[in-house]
Amino acid sequence: MGETSGMDWVDEAFEELGVADDEEGVLGQVGRLRRQVGFLLEIDKAKSIARRTYVTDGSRLENDAEHMWHAMLAALILAEHANGTVDPMRLACMLAVHDIVEIDAGDTFVYDTAGHADKAERETAAAGRIFGLLPLDQADQFRALWDEFEAGETDAAKMAAAIDRLLPLLMNRAVDGKTWSEHGITADRVFAVNSRIADGSTQIWDFARLVLEGAVRDGALHET
Amino acid sequence: MGETSGMDWVDEAFEELGVADDEEGVLGQVGRLRRQVGFLLEIDKAKSIARRTYVTDGSRLENDAEHMWHAMLAALILAEHANGTVDPMRLACMLAVHDIVEIDAGDTFVYDTAGHADKAERETAAAGRIFGLLPLDQADQFRALWDEFEAGETDAAKMAAAIDRLLPLLMNRAVDGKTWSEHGITADRVFAVNSRIADGSTQIWDFARLVLEGAVRDGALHET
Repeated sequence: MGETSGMDWVDEAFEELGVADDEEGVLGQVGRLRRQVGFLLEIDKAKSIARRTYVTDGSRLENDAEHMWHAMLAALILAEHANGTVDPMRLACMLAVHDIVEIDAGDTFVYDTAGHADKAERETAAAGRIFGLLPLDQADQFRALWDEFEAGETDAAKMAAAIDRLLPLLMNRAVDGKTWSEHGITADRVFAVNSRIADGSTQIWDFARLVLEGAVRDGALHET
Repeated sequence: MGETSGMDWVDEAFEELGVADDEEGVLGQVGRLRRQVGFLLEIDKAKSIARRTYVTDGSRLENDAEHMWHAMLAALILAEHANGTVDPMRLACMLAVHDIVEIDAGDTFVYDTAGHADKAERETAAAGRIFGLLPLDQADQFRALWDEFEAGETDAAKMAAAIDRLLPLLMNRAVDGKTWSEHGITADRVFAVNSRIADGSTQIWDFARLVLEGAVRDGALHET
């Protein structure tokens, strides 16, 4: 119960539909649907992966599913501010899948240096397993988006990373720097991590930098 | 604190950037960013709108932000099963915004006949206010997607409605029909509401119907 692996009712329904398990390379539409439903039930777990950022009423930490939705909307809206030319819909898709690997690998706090040592290894294994639940062509599409995001080299990946930093920055500011103070993150580290927003959008960093300077002035972000 | 209207730090940062409030029709890029940031902070509230569906580990109700993310991914993956030809990315955008109006209008349970009497009126006012926070062109884009979803006439809108029904159906089945039994929703009503999945995708309804029949057989969904 509750474990995806225990969802016999999915298999039962597909067996009644008369579809044997897929043979390599010859998935029909019903075989594809079976894999797609398995993936959709599996990624429900992203709703239970807590991040370090509070929702803006400060009542609780947000989770990965909420964050990916928020980032996806930000992509559609903010793509026009990217340094390079970025397709809003493709950027949105990149952000809608960017943290799915954390279902297996867990959320690594952006200020956690130790956690970042084996982050790539853990997340690559997760990408293989989770995206691998999908039909091959769709697994490849999602995996390519995630690989591009992780590599951080294209204009789209840089803009995605900028959005991935901007949202927690705004949300932390909205709750008077709660995450920063709880984890003892000082202004120099916040500026260092977030200045990379400029790689995606100098326009957005011009604004975000002023938000951070205001946070220091108001005591929501501490210098030491 | 916590109220978007109380986020003076956003205004302060934009005033420092030297941008006066926008004049009608002459929004520059910074004026646009100001409105976009306001929208992004406002829609954070969707993370606090509870639905009637439990996450698949049964621990709590899911919220609108999580649901929109899940539905958006389902759109990208399942668009190929639509009765008509549907662009996956556009379908994903439609589902990524479809419940934002509930920030003002609240979630109306699909089996709540009384709540549906004034649902359209409440949600239309909400769409005007919330999408209206964006620059005009983006407000119009999101509003058009939402209007199309609500009208339910295009192939994309029918497929979006199918996905909007399929996910809670699967999630309810995964927790042994918890929402159905808590609200005393009988099988005839569940079949009536969900048979409209066939308007978007007969292929998906063929599968979903078997899931529901299995739920009745296993006692997760009651006939009376």
